[in-house]
Amino acid sequence: MGAHTAALVVIGSEVLSAKVEDENGPWLARTLRARGVALRSITVIPDELEAVAEAVDRERRRAGWLFTSGGVGPTHDDLTLAGVARALGRPVVRHRTLEAVIRAIHGRHHPGEPLPEMALRMADVPEGTELIGDPGYPTLLCENVIMLPGVPRFFRYQVERVVELLSGTPFRLAILYLGVREELVAAALDAVARAHPQVEIGSYPQFDGGDHLVRVTVEARDLGAVRTTVAALRSALPPGAILREDEP
Amino acid sequence: MGAHTAALVVIGSEVLSAKVEDENGPWLARTLRARGVALRSITVIPDELEAVAEAVDRERRRAGWLFTSGGVGPTHDDLTLAGVARALGRPVVRHRTLEAVIRAIHGRHHPGEPLPEMALRMADVPEGTELIGDPGYPTLLCENVIMLPGVPRFFRYQVERVVELLSGTPFRLAILYLGVREELVAAALDAVARAHPQVEIGSYPQFDGGDHLVRVTVEARDLGAVRTTVAALRSALPPGAILREDEP
Repeated sequence: MGAHTAALVVIGSEVLSAKVEDENGPWLARTLRARGVALRSITVIPDELEAVAEAVDRERRRAGWLFTSGGVGPTHDDLTLAGVARALGRPVVRHRTLEAVIRAIHGRHHPGEPLPEMALRMADVPEGTELIGDPGYPTLLCENVIMLPGVPRFFRYQVERVVELLSGTPFRLAILYLGVREELVAAALDAVARAHPQVEIGSYPQFDGGDHLVRVTVEARDLGAVRTTVAALRSALPPGAILREDEP
Repeated sequence: MGAHTAALVVIGSEVLSAKVEDENGPWLARTLRARGVALRSITVIPDELEAVAEAVDRERRRAGWLFTSGGVGPTHDDLTLAGVARALGRPVVRHRTLEAVIRAIHGRHHPGEPLPEMALRMADVPEGTELIGDPGYPTLLCENVIMLPGVPRFFRYQVERVVELLSGTPFRLAILYLGVREELVAAALDAVARAHPQVEIGSYPQFDGGDHLVRVTVEARDLGAVRTTVAALRSALPPGAILREDEP
Protein backbone atom coordinates (compact mmCIF):
# COMPACT_ATOMS: atom_id res chain seq x y z
CA MET A 1 0.00 0.00 0.00
CA GLY A 2 1.73 3.14 -1.16
CA ALA A 3 0.88 6.81 -0.78
CA HIS A 4 0.14 6.86 -4.50
CA THR A 5 -2.74 4.40 -4.30
CA ALA A 6 -6.42 5.11 -3.77
CA ALA A 7 -9.78 3.40 -3.41
CA LEU A 8 -13.30 4.68 -4.03
CA VAL A 9 -16.49 3.85 -2.14
CA VAL A 10 -19.67 5.04 -3.88
CA ILE A 11 -22.60 5.37 -1.49
CA GLY A 12 -25.15 4.70 -4.17
CA SER A 13 -28.52 3.01 -3.68
CA GLU A 14 -29.57 4.95 -6.79
CA VAL A 15 -26.77 3.27 -8.78
CA LEU A 16 -27.53 -0.24 -7.48
CA SER A 17 -31.23 0.20 -8.25
CA ALA A 18 -30.42 1.50 -11.78
CA LYS A 19 -31.90 4.96 -11.30
CA VAL A 20 -28.64 6.58 -12.38
CA GLU A 21 -25.28 5.41 -13.72
CA ASP A 22 -22.25 6.28 -11.64
CA GLU A 23 -20.07 8.82 -13.47
CA ASN A 24 -17.68 9.49 -10.60
CA GLY A 25 -15.89 6.13 -10.70
CA PRO A 26 -14.79 6.32 -14.36
CA TRP A 27 -13.90 10.01 -14.04
CA LEU A 28 -11.84 9.43 -10.87
CA ALA A 29 -10.07 6.44 -12.47
CA ARG A 30 -8.96 8.63 -15.40
CA THR A 31 -8.04 11.61 -13.25
CA LEU A 32 -5.98 9.59 -10.78
CA ARG A 33 -4.27 7.56 -13.50
CA ALA A 34 -3.15 10.74 -15.23
CA ARG A 35 -1.60 11.82 -11.92
CA GLY A 36 0.24 8.55 -11.29
CA VAL A 37 -2.16 7.34 -8.61
CA ALA A 38 -3.21 3.67 -8.84
CA LEU A 39 -6.90 3.08 -8.08
CA ARG A 40 -7.10 -0.25 -6.24
CA SER A 41 -10.88 -0.71 -6.00
CA ILE A 42 -14.29 0.79 -6.66
CA THR A 43 -17.08 -0.35 -4.35
CA VAL A 44 -20.73 0.63 -4.78
CA ILE A 45 -22.86 0.06 -1.67
CA PRO A 46 -26.35 1.01 -0.49
CA ASP A 47 -27.13 4.14 1.55
CA GLU A 48 -26.97 2.20 4.84
CA LEU A 49 -24.92 3.17 7.87
CA GLU A 50 -23.53 -0.32 8.47
CA ALA A 51 -22.63 -0.78 4.81
CA VAL A 52 -20.77 2.55 4.73
CA ALA A 53 -18.88 1.85 7.95
CA GLU A 54 -17.88 -1.64 6.85
CA ALA A 55 -16.75 -0.65 3.34
CA VAL A 56 -14.81 2.41 4.54
CA ASP A 57 -13.07 0.46 7.28
CA ARG A 58 -12.03 -2.24 4.82
CA GLU A 59 -11.16 -0.22 1.73
CA ARG A 60 -9.18 2.51 3.45
CA ARG A 61 -6.70 -0.12 4.67
CA ARG A 62 -5.80 -1.22 1.17
CA ALA A 63 -4.85 2.15 -0.26
CA GLY A 64 -3.07 5.36 0.66
CA TRP A 65 -6.26 7.37 0.21
CA LEU A 66 -9.94 6.50 0.28
CA PHE A 67 -12.48 8.64 -1.54
CA THR A 68 -16.17 8.44 -0.76
CA SER A 69 -18.81 9.67 -3.21
CA GLY A 70 -22.31 10.68 -2.14
CA GLY A 71 -24.43 10.65 0.99
CA VAL A 72 -23.28 14.03 2.35
CA GLY A 73 -26.52 16.01 1.89
CA PRO A 74 -29.16 17.04 4.42
CA THR A 75 -31.70 14.17 4.09
CA HIS A 76 -32.38 10.88 5.88
CA ASP A 77 -30.50 8.88 3.22
CA ASP A 78 -27.29 10.91 3.72
CA LEU A 79 -25.33 8.67 6.07
CA THR A 80 -21.78 8.86 4.81
CA LEU A 81 -20.34 11.22 7.43
CA ALA A 82 -21.77 9.09 10.26
CA GLY A 83 -20.57 5.91 8.52
CA VAL A 84 -17.04 7.22 8.11
CA ALA A 85 -17.04 8.33 11.77
CA ARG A 86 -18.03 4.82 12.83
CA ALA A 87 -15.34 3.25 10.60
CA LEU A 88 -12.69 5.52 12.16
CA GLY A 89 -13.96 5.04 15.71
CA ARG A 90 -14.59 8.77 16.08
CA PRO A 91 -17.65 10.64 17.33
CA VAL A 92 -19.68 12.88 15.02
CA VAL A 93 -19.28 16.54 15.97
CA ARG A 94 -20.53 19.84 14.60
CA HIS A 95 -17.66 21.48 12.67
CA ARG A 96 -17.85 25.21 13.43
CA THR A 97 -15.88 26.41 10.39
CA LEU A 98 -17.92 24.19 8.10
CA GLU A 99 -21.11 25.49 9.70
CA ALA A 100 -19.95 29.04 8.93
CA VAL A 101 -19.21 28.04 5.33
CA ILE A 102 -22.69 26.52 4.93
CA ARG A 103 -24.25 29.67 6.41
CA ALA A 104 -22.20 31.84 4.04
CA ILE A 105 -23.16 29.81 0.94
CA HIS A 106 -26.80 29.87 1.99
CA GLY A 107 -26.66 33.62 2.58
CA ARG A 108 -25.20 34.24 -0.88
CA HIS A 109 -27.79 32.07 -2.66
CA HIS A 110 -30.84 32.92 -0.54
CA PRO A 111 -30.26 36.36 0.97
CA GLY A 112 -32.56 37.19 3.87
CA GLU A 113 -33.94 33.65 4.12
CA PRO A 114 -33.33 31.78 7.40
CA LEU A 115 -31.13 28.69 7.14
CA PRO A 116 -33.15 25.48 7.50
CA GLU A 117 -31.84 23.55 10.51
CA MET A 118 -31.48 20.36 8.41
CA ALA A 119 -28.89 22.05 6.19
CA LEU A 120 -26.50 22.00 9.15
CA ARG A 121 -26.52 18.20 9.13
CA MET A 122 -23.85 18.64 6.48
CA ALA A 123 -21.58 20.16 9.15
CA ASP A 124 -21.82 17.09 11.43
CA VAL A 125 -18.57 15.31 10.62
CA PRO A 126 -16.15 12.81 12.14
CA GLU A 127 -14.18 14.50 14.94
CA GLY A 128 -10.83 15.73 13.65
CA THR A 129 -12.04 16.35 10.09
CA GLU A 130 -9.92 18.95 8.27
CA LEU A 131 -11.13 21.29 5.56
CA ILE A 132 -8.84 21.29 2.51
CA GLY A 133 -8.99 22.65 -1.03
CA ASP A 134 -11.22 25.68 -1.71
CA PRO A 135 -12.02 27.37 1.65
CA GLY A 136 -15.30 28.62 0.15
CA TYR A 137 -16.37 25.11 -0.84
CA PRO A 138 -14.10 22.89 1.23
CA THR A 139 -13.28 19.22 0.88
CA LEU A 140 -13.55 17.05 4.00
CA LEU A 141 -10.52 14.98 5.01
CA CYS A 142 -10.28 12.74 8.08
CA GLU A 143 -7.24 10.47 8.45
CA ASN A 144 -6.88 9.11 4.91
CA VAL A 145 -10.58 9.45 3.99
CA ILE A 146 -11.70 12.18 1.58
CA MET A 147 -15.49 12.66 1.71
CA LEU A 148 -16.97 14.01 -1.52
CA PRO A 149 -20.45 14.94 -2.74
CA GLY A 150 -22.08 12.54 -5.21
CA VAL A 151 -23.31 15.14 -7.72
CA PRO A 152 -20.69 14.77 -10.50
CA ARG A 153 -20.15 18.51 -10.99
CA PHE A 154 -19.36 19.03 -7.30
CA PHE A 155 -17.40 15.76 -7.00
CA ARG A 156 -15.10 16.85 -9.83
CA TYR A 157 -14.65 20.38 -8.50
CA GLN A 158 -13.55 19.09 -5.11
CA VAL A 159 -11.23 16.39 -6.47
CA GLU A 160 -9.53 18.84 -8.81
CA ARG A 161 -8.73 21.10 -5.87
CA VAL A 162 -7.06 18.37 -3.77
CA VAL A 163 -5.59 15.94 -6.26
CA GLU A 164 -2.14 17.57 -6.10
CA LEU A 165 -1.87 16.13 -2.57
CA LEU A 166 -1.84 12.62 -3.97
CA SER A 167 0.13 12.88 -7.18
CA GLY A 168 2.89 10.39 -7.91
CA THR A 169 5.13 9.37 -10.78
CA PRO A 170 2.92 9.05 -13.87
CA PHE A 171 2.24 5.66 -15.45
CA ARG A 172 3.69 4.94 -18.89
CA LEU A 173 1.53 2.81 -21.17
CA ALA A 174 2.46 0.99 -24.37
CA ILE A 175 -0.16 -0.84 -26.43
CA LEU A 176 0.46 -3.64 -28.92
CA TYR A 177 -2.28 -4.45 -31.41
CA LEU A 178 -2.18 -8.10 -32.46
CA GLY A 179 -3.61 -9.69 -35.58
CA VAL A 180 -3.79 -13.17 -34.03
CA ARG A 181 -6.22 -14.71 -31.55
CA GLU A 182 -5.57 -14.54 -27.83
CA GLU A 183 -5.18 -18.27 -27.23
CA LEU A 184 -2.34 -18.40 -29.78
CA VAL A 185 -0.29 -15.85 -27.83
CA ALA A 186 -1.32 -16.78 -24.30
CA ALA A 187 1.79 -18.89 -23.65
CA ALA A 188 4.13 -16.11 -24.86
CA LEU A 189 2.31 -13.46 -22.77
CA ASP A 190 2.48 -15.76 -19.78
CA ALA A 191 6.24 -16.18 -20.05
CA VAL A 192 6.90 -12.45 -20.53
CA ALA A 193 4.54 -11.51 -17.67
CA ARG A 194 6.34 -13.92 -15.35
CA ALA A 195 9.74 -12.51 -16.34
CA HIS A 196 8.62 -8.87 -15.81
CA PRO A 197 6.55 -8.90 -12.62
CA GLN A 198 7.06 -5.17 -12.03
CA VAL A 199 5.13 -4.35 -15.22
CA GLU A 200 1.36 -4.80 -15.62
CA ILE A 201 0.56 -6.69 -18.79
CA GLY A 202 -3.10 -6.83 -19.84
CA SER A 203 -4.58 -8.85 -22.69
CA TYR A 204 -7.96 -7.83 -24.13
CA PRO A 205 -9.58 -9.77 -26.95
CA GLN A 206 -11.55 -7.60 -29.37
CA PHE A 207 -14.74 -8.80 -31.02
CA ASP A 208 -15.83 -5.60 -32.73
CA GLY A 209 -14.68 -6.46 -36.26
CA GLY A 210 -11.80 -3.93 -36.13
CA ASP A 211 -8.37 -4.59 -37.65
CA HIS A 212 -6.88 -6.28 -34.57
CA LEU A 213 -7.96 -9.30 -32.51
CA VAL A 214 -6.11 -8.60 -29.25
CA ARG A 215 -4.94 -5.45 -27.52
CA VAL A 216 -1.98 -6.01 -25.18
CA THR A 217 -1.27 -3.26 -22.67
CA VAL A 218 2.12 -2.84 -20.96
CA GLU A 219 2.15 -0.38 -18.10
CA ALA A 220 4.46 0.75 -15.30
CA ARG A 221 5.77 3.93 -13.72
CA ASP A 222 9.26 3.12 -15.04
CA LEU A 223 9.54 3.94 -18.75
CA GLY A 224 12.63 1.76 -19.13
CA ALA A 225 10.77 -1.24 -17.72
CA VAL A 226 7.91 -0.69 -20.18
CA ARG A 227 10.34 -0.51 -23.11
CA THR A 228 12.25 -3.63 -22.02
CA THR A 229 9.00 -5.54 -21.64
CA VAL A 230 7.75 -4.43 -25.07
CA ALA A 231 11.06 -5.61 -26.56
CA ALA A 232 10.62 -8.96 -24.80
CA LEU A 233 7.12 -9.26 -26.25
CA ARG A 234 8.38 -8.48 -29.75
CA SER A 235 10.78 -11.43 -29.43
CA ALA A 236 8.32 -13.81 -27.78
CA LEU A 237 5.27 -13.25 -29.99
CA PRO A 238 4.90 -15.12 -33.30
CA PRO A 239 6.42 -13.27 -36.29
CA GLY A 240 3.93 -10.84 -37.82
CA ALA A 241 1.59 -11.00 -34.80
CA ILE A 242 2.08 -7.30 -33.94
CA LEU A 243 0.16 -5.09 -36.39
CA ARG A 244 1.19 -1.82 -34.77
CA GLU A 245 2.23 -0.27 -31.45
CA ASP A 246 1.40 2.79 -29.40
CA GLU A 247 4.60 4.12 -27.83
CA PRO A 248 4.72 4.56 -24.05
CA MET B 1 -30.10 -11.90 2.51
CA GLY B 2 -32.87 -13.18 0.27
CA ALA B 3 -32.88 -15.36 -2.82
CA HIS B 4 -33.85 -12.29 -4.80
CA THR B 5 -30.68 -10.37 -4.02
CA ALA B 6 -27.42 -10.31 -5.94
CA ALA B 7 -23.92 -8.83 -5.88
CA LEU B 8 -21.44 -8.22 -8.68
CA VAL B 9 -17.65 -8.48 -8.60
CA VAL B 10 -15.92 -7.02 -11.66
CA ILE B 11 -12.41 -8.41 -12.15
CA GLY B 12 -11.19 -5.32 -13.89
CA SER B 13 -7.65 -3.93 -13.78
CA GLU B 14 -8.53 -2.32 -17.13
CA VAL B 15 -11.43 -0.47 -15.45
CA LEU B 16 -9.37 0.68 -12.44
CA SER B 17 -6.59 1.92 -14.73
CA ALA B 18 -9.12 3.76 -16.93
CA LYS B 19 -8.45 1.80 -20.10
CA VAL B 20 -12.15 0.96 -20.45
CA GLU B 21 -15.36 1.88 -18.65
CA ASP B 22 -17.31 -0.97 -17.12
CA GLU B 23 -20.60 -1.49 -18.98
CA ASN B 24 -21.60 -4.70 -17.24
CA GLY B 25 -22.41 -3.15 -13.84
CA PRO B 26 -24.98 -0.62 -15.11
CA TRP B 27 -26.51 -3.16 -17.50
CA LEU B 28 -26.79 -5.83 -14.79
CA ALA B 29 -28.32 -3.32 -12.35
CA ARG B 30 -31.06 -2.48 -14.89
CA THR B 31 -31.65 -6.09 -15.90
CA LEU B 32 -31.89 -7.39 -12.35
CA ARG B 33 -34.05 -4.49 -11.19
CA ALA B 34 -36.56 -5.19 -13.96
CA ARG B 35 -36.72 -8.79 -12.70
CA GLY B 36 -37.27 -7.88 -9.07
CA VAL B 37 -33.74 -8.75 -7.96
CA ALA B 38 -32.05 -6.25 -5.62
CA LEU B 39 -28.38 -5.63 -6.43
CA ARG B 40 -26.60 -5.16 -3.08
CA SER B 41 -23.11 -4.20 -4.24
CA ILE B 42 -20.78 -3.70 -7.19
CA THR B 43 -17.08 -4.23 -6.49
CA VAL B 44 -14.33 -3.57 -9.03
CA ILE B 45 -11.01 -5.21 -8.15
CA PRO B 46 -7.68 -5.83 -9.89
CA ASP B 47 -6.88 -9.05 -11.81
CA GLU B 48 -5.13 -10.59 -8.80
CA LEU B 49 -5.82 -14.02 -7.36
CA GLU B 50 -5.95 -12.86 -3.74
CA ALA B 51 -8.20 -9.92 -4.56
CA VAL B 52 -10.65 -12.17 -6.42
CA ALA B 53 -10.73 -14.77 -3.67
CA GLU B 54 -11.26 -12.19 -0.94
CA ALA B 55 -13.99 -10.24 -2.77
CA VAL B 56 -15.89 -13.36 -3.84
CA ASP B 57 -15.75 -14.84 -0.35
CA ARG B 58 -17.08 -11.63 1.16
CA GLU B 59 -19.65 -10.53 -1.40
CA ARG B 60 -21.28 -13.91 -1.95
CA ARG B 61 -22.27 -13.97 1.73
CA ARG B 62 -24.30 -10.79 1.47
CA ALA B 63 -26.56 -11.79 -1.41
CA GLY B 64 -28.46 -14.75 -2.76
CA TRP B 65 -26.37 -14.77 -5.93
CA LEU B 66 -22.94 -13.46 -6.81
CA PHE B 67 -22.02 -12.62 -10.39
CA THR B 68 -18.41 -12.24 -11.48
CA SER B 69 -17.47 -10.37 -14.66
CA GLY B 70 -14.22 -10.96 -16.51
CA GLY B 71 -11.01 -12.90 -16.04
CA VAL B 72 -12.23 -16.16 -17.62
CA GLY B 73 -10.08 -16.13 -20.79
CA PRO B 74 -6.92 -18.06 -21.65
CA THR B 75 -4.18 -15.59 -20.62
CA HIS B 76 -2.03 -14.99 -17.55
CA ASP B 77 -4.34 -12.22 -16.29
CA ASP B 78 -7.40 -14.53 -16.29
CA LEU B 79 -7.55 -15.60 -12.65
CA THR B 80 -11.24 -15.55 -11.82
CA LEU B 81 -11.92 -19.30 -11.93
CA ALA B 82 -8.96 -20.00 -9.64
CA GLY B 83 -9.98 -17.12 -7.35
CA VAL B 84 -13.55 -18.38 -7.04
CA ALA B 85 -12.23 -21.89 -6.33
CA ARG B 86 -10.08 -20.52 -3.52
CA ALA B 87 -13.00 -18.52 -2.09
CA LEU B 88 -15.17 -21.65 -2.06
CA GLY B 89 -12.41 -23.89 -0.69
CA ARG B 90 -12.61 -26.13 -3.77
CA PRO B 91 -9.84 -27.43 -6.01
CA VAL B 92 -9.62 -26.39 -9.67
CA VAL B 93 -10.41 -29.31 -11.98
CA ARG B 94 -10.69 -29.77 -15.73
CA HIS B 95 -14.41 -29.86 -16.63
CA ARG B 96 -14.80 -32.51 -19.33
CA THR B 97 -18.11 -31.25 -20.74
CA LEU B 98 -16.81 -27.69 -20.86
CA GLU B 99 -13.64 -28.93 -22.57
CA ALA B 100 -15.83 -30.60 -25.21
CA VAL B 101 -17.81 -27.36 -25.66
CA ILE B 102 -14.58 -25.35 -26.14
CA ARG B 103 -13.32 -27.91 -28.66
CA ALA B 104 -16.65 -27.76 -30.53
CA ILE B 105 -16.68 -23.94 -30.67
CA HIS B 106 -13.06 -23.93 -31.83
CA GLY B 107 -13.82 -26.55 -34.50
CA ARG B 108 -16.72 -24.50 -35.86
CA HIS B 109 -14.75 -21.26 -36.03
CA HIS B 110 -11.38 -22.66 -37.10
CA PRO B 111 -12.01 -25.94 -38.92
CA GLY B 112 -8.95 -28.14 -39.31
CA GLU B 113 -6.82 -26.02 -36.98
CA PRO B 114 -5.49 -27.71 -33.82
CA LEU B 115 -6.80 -26.31 -30.54
CA PRO B 116 -4.11 -24.29 -28.69
CA GLU B 117 -3.51 -25.92 -25.32
CA MET B 118 -3.97 -22.55 -23.55
CA ALA B 119 -7.60 -22.36 -24.71
CA LEU B 120 -8.39 -25.25 -22.37
CA ARG B 121 -7.45 -23.10 -19.38
CA MET B 122 -11.01 -21.87 -19.73
CA ALA B 123 -12.21 -25.38 -18.80
CA ASP B 124 -10.29 -25.41 -15.49
CA VAL B 125 -13.04 -24.55 -13.02
CA PRO B 126 -13.91 -24.91 -9.33
CA GLU B 127 -14.80 -28.55 -8.61
CA GLY B 128 -18.57 -29.04 -8.71
CA THR B 129 -19.20 -26.26 -11.26
CA GLU B 130 -22.45 -26.79 -13.19
CA LEU B 131 -23.12 -25.68 -16.74
CA ILE B 132 -26.45 -23.84 -17.08
CA GLY B 133 -28.16 -21.76 -19.76
CA ASP B 134 -27.23 -22.40 -23.40
CA PRO B 135 -25.48 -25.81 -23.62
CA GLY B 136 -23.59 -24.55 -26.70
CA TYR B 137 -22.24 -21.53 -24.79
CA PRO B 138 -22.81 -22.45 -21.17
CA THR B 139 -22.79 -20.30 -18.05
CA LEU B 140 -20.69 -21.48 -15.10
CA LEU B 141 -22.41 -21.85 -11.71
CA CYS B 142 -20.75 -23.06 -8.50
CA GLU B 143 -22.71 -22.81 -5.24
CA ASN B 144 -24.20 -19.31 -5.55
CA VAL B 145 -21.45 -17.90 -7.81
CA ILE B 146 -22.19 -17.27 -11.51
CA MET B 147 -18.95 -16.73 -13.45
CA LEU B 148 -19.38 -14.59 -16.56
CA PRO B 149 -17.12 -13.32 -19.33
CA GLY B 150 -16.19 -9.65 -19.22
CA VAL B 151 -16.80 -8.82 -22.89
CA PRO B 152 -20.18 -7.03 -22.68
CA ARG B 153 -21.77 -8.88 -25.60
CA PHE B 154 -21.00 -12.29 -24.07
CA PHE B 155 -21.79 -11.15 -20.52
CA ARG B 156 -25.28 -10.08 -21.60
CA TYR B 157 -25.93 -13.23 -23.64
CA GLN B 158 -25.11 -15.43 -20.67
CA VAL B 159 -27.08 -13.38 -18.12
CA GLU B 160 -30.15 -13.33 -20.35
CA ARG B 161 -30.12 -17.13 -20.50
CA VAL B 162 -30.03 -17.64 -16.73
CA VAL B 163 -31.80 -14.63 -15.24
CA GLU B 164 -35.10 -16.53 -14.96
CA LEU B 165 -33.48 -18.55 -12.17
CA LEU B 166 -33.28 -15.48 -9.99
CA SER B 167 -36.45 -13.55 -10.74
CA GLY B 168 -38.54 -12.22 -7.88
CA THR B 169 -41.48 -9.91 -7.33
CA PRO B 170 -40.83 -6.76 -9.37
CA PHE B 171 -40.12 -3.46 -7.67
CA ARG B 172 -42.68 -0.66 -7.95
CA LEU B 173 -41.31 2.86 -8.19
CA ALA B 174 -43.06 6.19 -7.75
CA ILE B 175 -41.24 9.48 -8.33
CA LEU B 176 -42.19 12.89 -6.92
CA TYR B 177 -40.69 15.98 -8.56
CA LEU B 178 -40.34 18.84 -6.09
CA GLY B 179 -40.08 22.54 -6.79
CA VAL B 180 -38.41 23.34 -3.44
CA ARG B 181 -34.86 22.83 -2.22
CA GLU B 182 -33.85 19.64 -0.47
CA GLU B 183 -33.03 21.16 2.92
CA LEU B 184 -36.57 22.57 3.14
CA VAL B 185 -38.14 19.11 2.86
CA ALA B 186 -35.48 17.09 4.70
CA ALA B 187 -37.41 17.01 7.98
CA ALA B 188 -40.64 15.84 6.29
CA LEU B 189 -38.79 13.15 4.31
CA ASP B 190 -37.10 12.04 7.48
CA ALA B 191 -40.37 11.57 9.31
CA VAL B 192 -42.05 9.70 6.47
CA ALA B 193 -38.99 7.47 5.93
CA ARG B 194 -38.98 6.56 9.64
CA ALA B 195 -42.69 5.74 9.57
CA HIS B 196 -42.37 3.55 6.44
CA PRO B 197 -39.19 1.52 6.94
CA GLN B 198 -40.26 -1.18 4.46
CA VAL B 199 -40.15 1.35 1.61
CA GLU B 200 -36.96 2.81 0.15
CA ILE B 201 -37.15 6.59 -0.08
CA GLY B 202 -34.40 8.36 -2.01
CA SER B 203 -33.86 12.11 -2.30
CA TYR B 204 -31.78 13.47 -5.19
CA PRO B 205 -31.12 17.18 -5.57
CA GLN B 206 -30.97 18.34 -9.20
CA PHE B 207 -28.60 21.05 -10.34
CA ASP B 208 -29.16 20.87 -14.08
CA GLY B 209 -31.49 23.87 -14.42
CA GLY B 210 -34.56 21.68 -15.12
CA ASP B 211 -38.05 22.44 -13.78
CA HIS B 212 -37.60 20.60 -10.46
CA LEU B 213 -35.05 20.93 -7.65
CA VAL B 214 -35.42 17.52 -6.01
CA ARG B 215 -36.43 14.09 -7.24
CA VAL B 216 -37.88 11.86 -4.50
CA THR B 217 -38.07 8.13 -5.28
CA VAL B 218 -40.39 5.75 -3.39
CA GLU B 219 -39.77 2.09 -4.09
CA ALA B 220 -40.82 -1.32 -2.76
CA ARG B 221 -42.02 -4.67 -4.03
CA ASP B 222 -45.44 -4.01 -2.44
CA LEU B 223 -47.50 -1.61 -4.58
CA GLY B 224 -49.83 -0.80 -1.67
CA ALA B 225 -46.89 0.21 0.50
CA VAL B 226 -45.60 2.53 -2.24
CA ARG B 227 -49.02 4.16 -2.60
CA THR B 228 -49.47 4.61 1.16
CA THR B 229 -46.02 6.17 1.43
CA VAL B 230 -46.67 8.54 -1.48
CA ALA B 231 -49.92 9.60 0.23
CA ALA B 232 -47.99 10.22 3.46
CA LEU B 233 -45.48 12.36 1.55
CA ARG B 234 -48.29 14.40 -0.04
CA SER B 235 -49.52 15.23 3.48
CA ALA B 236 -46.10 15.87 5.01
CA LEU B 237 -44.53 18.02 2.28
CA PRO B 238 -45.20 21.77 2.16
CA PRO B 239 -48.27 22.73 0.08
CA GLY B 240 -47.33 23.15 -3.59
CA ALA B 241 -43.96 21.44 -3.17
CA ILE B 242 -44.88 18.55 -5.51
CA LEU B 243 -44.79 19.68 -9.15
CA ARG B 244 -45.77 16.30 -10.59
CA GLU B 245 -45.62 12.56 -9.92
CA ASP B 246 -44.74 9.41 -11.82
CA GLU B 247 -47.17 6.66 -10.78
CA PRO B 248 -45.73 3.40 -9.44
